[in-house]
Amino acid sequence: MIALDNHPSGRHFLQIPGPSPVPDRILRAISLPTIDHRGPEFGALGRKVVSGLQQIFQTRHPVAIYPASGTGAWEAALVNTLSPGDKVLMVETGHFAALWQNMANKLGLAPEFIKGDWRHGADAAAIEAKLAEDKGKVIKAVCVVHNETSTGVVSRIGEARKAIDRAKHPALYMVDTISSLASIDYRHDEWGVDVTVAGSQKGLMLPPGLSFNAVSDKALAASKSAKLPRSYWNWEEMIASNKDGWFPYTPATNLLYGLQVSLRMLLEEEGLENVFKRHDRHAEAARRAVRAWGLEILCLNPAEYSSSLTAVLMPDGHSEIKFREAVLERFNLSLGSGLTKLRDKVFRIGHLGDFNDLMLAGTLAGIEMGLELTGVPHKKGGVDAAMDYLVHSEVARGAAKRAAA
Amino acid sequence: MIALDNHPSGRHFLQIPGPSPVPDRILRAISLPTIDHRGPEFGALGRKVVSGLQQIFQTRHPVAIYPASGTGAWEAALVNTLSPGDKVLMVETGHFAALWQNMANKLGLAPEFIKGDWRHGADAAAIEAKLAEDKGKVIKAVCVVHNETSTGVVSRIGEARKAIDRAKHPALYMVDTISSLASIDYRHDEWGVDVTVAGSQKGLMLPPGLSFNAVSDKALAASKSAKLPRSYWNWEEMIASNKDGWFPYTPATNLLYGLQVSLRMLLEEEGLENVFKRHDRHAEAARRAVRAWGLEILCLNPAEYSSSLTAVLMPDGHSEIKFREAVLERFNLSLGSGLTKLRDKVFRIGHLGDFNDLMLAGTLAGIEMGLELTGVPHKKGGVDAAMDYLVHSEVARGAAKRAAA
Amino acid sequence: MIALDNHPSGRHFLQIPGPSPVPDRILRAISLPTIDHRGPEFGALGRKVVSGLQQIFQTRHPVAIYPASGTGAWEAALVNTLSPGDKVLMVETGHFAALWQNMANKLGLAPEFIKGDWRHGADAAAIEAKLAEDKGKVIKAVCVVHNETSTGVVSRIGEARKAIDRAKHPALYMVDTISSLASIDYRHDEWGVDVTVAGSQKGLMLPPGLSFNAVSDKALAASKSAKLPRSYWNWEEMIASNKDGWFPYTPATNLLYGLQVSLRMLLEEEGLENVFKRHDRHAEAARRAVRAWGLEILCLNPAEYSSSLTAVLMPDGHSEIKFREAVLERFNLSLGSGLTKLRDKVFRIGHLGDFNDLMLAGTLAGIEMGLELTGVPHKKGGVDAAMDYLVHSEVARGAAKRAAA
Amino acid sequence: MIALDNHPSGRHFLQIPGPSPVPDRILRAISLPTIDHRGPEFGALGRKVVSGLQQIFQTRHPVAIYPASGTGAWEAALVNTLSPGDKVLMVETGHFAALWQNMANKLGLAPEFIKGDWRHGADAAAIEAKLAEDKGKVIKAVCVVHNETSTGVVSRIGEARKAIDRAKHPALYMVDTISSLASIDYRHDEWGVDVTVAGSQKGLMLPPGLSFNAVSDKALAASKSAKLPRSYWNWEEMIASNKDGWFPYTPATNLLYGLQVSLRMLLEEEGLENVFKRHDRHAEAARRAVRAWGLEILCLNPAEYSSSLTAVLMPDGHSEIKFREAVLERFNLSLGSGLTKLRDKVFRIGHLGDFNDLMLAGTLAGIEMGLELTGVPHKKGGVDAAMDYLVHSEVARGAAKRAAA
Repeated sequence: MIALDNHPSGRHFLQIPGPSPVPDRILRAISLPTIDHRGPEFGALGRKVVSGLQQIFQTRHPVAIYPASGTGAWEAALVNTLSPGDKVLMVETGHFAALWQNMANKLGLAPEFIKGDWRHGADAAAIEAKLAEDKGKVIKAVCVVHNETSTGVVSRIGEARKAIDRAKHPALYMVDTISSLASIDYRHDEWGVDVTVAGSQKGLMLPPGLSFNAVSDKALAASKSAKLPRSYWNWEEMIASNKDGWFPYTPATNLLYGLQVSLRMLLEEEGLENVFKRHDRHAEAARRAVRAWGLEILCLNPAEYSSSLTAVLMPDGHSEIKFREAVLERFNLSLGSGLTKLRDKVFRIGHLGDFNDLMLAGTLAGIEMGLELTGVPHKKGGVDAAMDYLVHSEVARGAAKRAAA
Repeated sequence: MIALDNHPSGRHFLQIPGPSPVPDRILRAISLPTIDHRGPEFGALGRKVVSGLQQIFQTRHPVAIYPASGTGAWEAALVNTLSPGDKVLMVETGHFAALWQNMANKLGLAPEFIKGDWRHGADAAAIEAKLAEDKGKVIKAVCVVHNETSTGVVSRIGEARKAIDRAKHPALYMVDTISSLASIDYRHDEWGVDVTVAGSQKGLMLPPGLSFNAVSDKALAASKSAKLPRSYWNWEEMIASNKDGWFPYTPATNLLYGLQVSLRMLLEEEGLENVFKRHDRHAEAARRAVRAWGLEILCLNPAEYSSSLTAVLMPDGHSEIKFREAVLERFNLSLGSGLTKLRDKVFRIGHLGDFNDLMLAGTLAGIEMGLELTGVPHKKGGVDAAMDYLVHSEVARGAAKRAAA
Repeated sequence: MIALDNHPSGRHFLQIPGPSPVPDRILRAISLPTIDHRGPEFGALGRKVVSGLQQIFQTRHPVAIYPASGTGAWEAALVNTLSPGDKVLMVETGHFAALWQNMANKLGLAPEFIKGDWRHGADAAAIEAKLAEDKGKVIKAVCVVHNETSTGVVSRIGEARKAIDRAKHPALYMVDTISSLASIDYRHDEWGVDVTVAGSQKGLMLPPGLSFNAVSDKALAASKSAKLPRSYWNWEEMIASNKDGWFPYTPATNLLYGLQVSLRMLLEEEGLENVFKRHDRHAEAARRAVRAWGLEILCLNPAEYSSSLTAVLMPDGHSEIKFREAVLERFNLSLGSGLTKLRDKVFRIGHLGDFNDLMLAGTLAGIEMGLELTGVPHKKGGVDAAMDYLVHSEVARGAAKRAAA
Repeated sequence: MIALDNHPSGRHFLQIPGPSPVPDRILRAISLPTIDHRGPEFGALGRKVVSGLQQIFQTRHPVAIYPASGTGAWEAALVNTLSPGDKVLMVETGHFAALWQNMANKLGLAPEFIKGDWRHGADAAAIEAKLAEDKGKVIKAVCVVHNETSTGVVSRIGEARKAIDRAKHPALYMVDTISSLASIDYRHDEWGVDVTVAGSQKGLMLPPGLSFNAVSDKALAASKSAKLPRSYWNWEEMIASNKDGWFPYTPATNLLYGLQVSLRMLLEEEGLENVFKRHDRHAEAARRAVRAWGLEILCLNPAEYSSSLTAVLMPDGHSEIKFREAVLERFNLSLGSGLTKLRDKVFRIGHLGDFNDLMLAGTLAGIEMGLELTGVPHKKGGVDAAMDYLVHSEVARGAAKRAAA
């Protein structure tokens, strides 16, 4: 198999929880010729995407755009606001929360990690308790993953904000929205988040290679005295440049072309609220399929179900690795794997980004056939259950669509 | 709705019986810069595609390439071989056979049309009888549609050849393979066909805009004395030029780029035999779904089932037009309509070209949900029946795939 | 050399007089997925391009769009309006006029060919004389090539119209604008043309594969009684379908995507008048270079200079074929060849379509260096002369450009 | 002007010293659908590009690939090998050397900056002297920019290596090849470089968004004890993953598609040595044009001329900013600006990456006309001088080209 030069026939179903399938129009846009990122045409592009991103983050504050993948935006959030040895309160929602905590350690911070069972979101009460205990206010930041990509569990960010407020604690509030932004409702300003971390390859429907920090005034103020060394990630120059459409160093020009199209699709054509409803509906249909198969959804609290992905427990004694390999080989469908402590125990269905009913039906059919093919005990009827929901649930229409009708 | 600038979210399912979905690699190839069609680079491209096309048509004879859609290749077949007033025997397999016959009339030929019920392929015995009656050998050509796109019925081309031979009749044998070539096994030389007509936008997986004539020695000889006026379609200059990779007038350069990739995918990567088996398997799965719904397949003879498409009768009193509109609007799925006498009575499922199991599952799910949505009486379980077949039937692997394993 | 997989470094200069260089945005547009040409999205696209084309042809009359190259539109003009044996008056402006006349012969018409020296445009007085002689009004059509691609000579179409009128002759007036439309001012209605023939790959900046007939009421009326057999080219169905955005048979969908972008660029962004001025300016610069080299421009009458291309006579004893081969091999520049009686005697510089000052400077530099490389006697200073004109002549700005300023 | 939706006609000449013009084949490759970066197809791609990159860097050592622009690879080089407060010896060759030094400061290092006049490369003797003085071996690294993008001056990396060796100093040797790699001969292993820094958007002909570190054993060993905090840039995980074709976090998948094509073009089609010769030849032609204009080349030592770009001093009292604006507005040509202390004093001509004779001729014509247009005192004849050299100098042919001949 030689990458790009030999594929099985038909369209690949990329249903990992990101990168998500990139729409054709975005792929065409990123293939336009690279231009001078110091020229007037680029400046107009830059201003346009910065302003559109603010609507996506639901913020009036600056959004820094990095030529980097999401992991870079995690690092940017930490190094811009913290100093060596700073204590940060992080919440173990799953693999990615653990990686972020790991990063904090590597960067010389002192993360305290509120343990979790990888089946629930962040516990606002536990956060409140930890902060209340912290009489000396040594905790400098609270870090929560909004949508834990490894588990399909959403943490209620507004609730955690209230917990911080109740504790009257001055810690910064940082939230990872890498796999939720532009798929699940998220409100940087309303929820009082100080730094929101995001990437291009999920709800924004772009290839990987761009990542973002939305930054509150409080976070900006904190960055003035933060002592972790930083240069590439430095907000000061990035935000100052970005607001006029420029970059302090070479940006990922062609991905920005795609971002412009993505923003138009999300904001002008479909409308952000409709995007969220679409994902809610697909997620519910996916869960109905899982239940019909008699399999268990990893997320235990329905109030925390993810609309981006659904993680499914394999029955005991069955390997998700073998299952996914068979599904890829036979059905040209990529599913997400179980990560670290979930390794070989769960598979994940991505239903984020540019997605519709029949892509979901095809995906669920691939899973149902894969279960059969690999001898995983299950009941049939998952696709049927999903179809039953899809056909009877109401569909939100994009504004552009309505206008055209 | 403004074409190209505003789509519903997610991938469109283009499951009409052609144009078929164009693979990403082909779309990228056709977007490369146009070159000089008189320059050396083009000549190499031209020679390559002509030689690949011969393998596709299973012929050692010339294949003329027109910058035109398939209808043009129909006209080319007639005007190159026939003279005004010539009698041609045509077979009413459905709408497209009728259009071809209509064209023959417009061009001043005298087609005799063997009546058909649009639910069977060409009747070899009837052809034989007509030819046997024709003592004066005034019939100059027998024209048959291999895969009738309006009905999903395949005519057995080899059988009809034998019928012509039994009648010892010198008529030319012309076959339309527009919706079968490179999806259903077809053998220009072995089956003794004189002119094979084909287009780019079906099994060859290209956008529309190219069409073809494969031409036997006998047909070429006939063209020397044929009197219908012709210039654009004239084989003489086209074939003479094509064999060295050139064209007598400006060719559709960018589609030829795509054709080069298409030929590599079909011949080198998957292998033509595997392509046929893939389509057979998907067609069988589709038919099982139709039967499970309790709907009727238009094609009455299982020996004539099409592997490119399946036409399905709507229950009495139900409109396929409303059904398809609903399916397009709600599920972003395009299905084929009923044509002329089948108008509003059948819908057609395209499963030709670049296609795989999950694209089929998604398509069938769209239909099953659409039947529910529009209140068409049916049983559930169509997608299930298809999945059951897909998971248990053997999959033919492409040579390239095998080599890589 | 394997087409598409191995090129010399850097951008190819495609400066033949068509196909012209295709802008990046158009290439991206034609690579979007093919859609159902019977669906609502396509209909909107179809209506948009038909209406835009009318502005390009400067007509309120119908424009038929064929999936074919320009030669097909020639044939369409003839077969829709004429009957076997009809006399048509054609004018030998060069190779393409001769090919059109040749086609008329093949189609069973009786062309009378007004001789020409391939260095002048159509002689209105000669046309008038021929028509005046034709007391019996047996001449059914007068056919003129607006911009003769083989010679770089423009025929004054309005003048010829007046000649026909002076002769009070009812013949239809047909004009080939294949290499002038959308590069050189052309007015279908104002100049009283009955059928205008055009193609996609020149001023419209698309790959080849689309061609057009703009059709007057008089031509439409003539088509009712015209007896040449026709089907693919038949206006009746094509125009009836096109006006609502549809096609009687499968259209070249992806090229129509490109056409939509082309029309936006020409009509909305740059403005047609500015497009014409741009080409006039580049043509004048090219001619100044030719004169500076001491070479001779083929076109003898400055009132007939072409703004699409400039044909240049090689000095006696020097081969344009060897010259062009060397230029292609060494400088990656494609120039047009001498055709039939000009074979090996002239080369042609295309400066039509999507073109600008530095593309012209690069092209002229390739020629000047090629002359040196192949030992063709010439004076230096051609590029200098062109630069001198380019820098001092006024540039017309597109409306969009102005608005943005 | 709205980015991407409204351009002046014709091809833009992007002749800044990077991003360089991206070849069409690479643009098409980066627009292929994003795949799972944990799947088998991606692994094959990853291994292929890592191995190709080693040939480009002329090294057998690991090359780390970052989803980041070149500035990130600078940071990676420093944070992986150094500890807070470490002294590094840097050489002021120009703006980018100053930025790198600035970054070292921001990261808490103690750079010593050998002053320079921005018109010469690194002075090996000065480096030797500084190292010889450093009895305590407190200098941990010597950092040199190979090709200073702001000045068009090349530092002789092999000479500096010898200087370090003569001083018997254990400092690591780090080299920035951002604007030289794959345009100018560079030998990581032979020249004993410990960390080579590079990016995608110059000689590799890709859009920006990838950057690289080639890493010696000595550098890897140093990274074990280096104390600067790092996570995103951490070699350990990156190199361990990269060598099998994987990444520790989400890579810039689509740019890697383009990299695969770039490597094939450079290594298999043209051959790296021919690539270097091509750039040498174009640089010489550009300099001849500059001299003919009577303008001054910024680089004072011919042994240090850059083959990637040529920086040109504006005559006193003339603004390069106004000059470049006029050239962009009128001729659609982007040139590089003067940076910091060269602001408004020099303009820079990029002739790196995918480039050929006529692109250079067009570029130089734009400059010559721009000088005239803006009233900058100059002699004519620059384009002539360049053409004279181009036509008479020998051209190195790619291996693939030769084989095809």
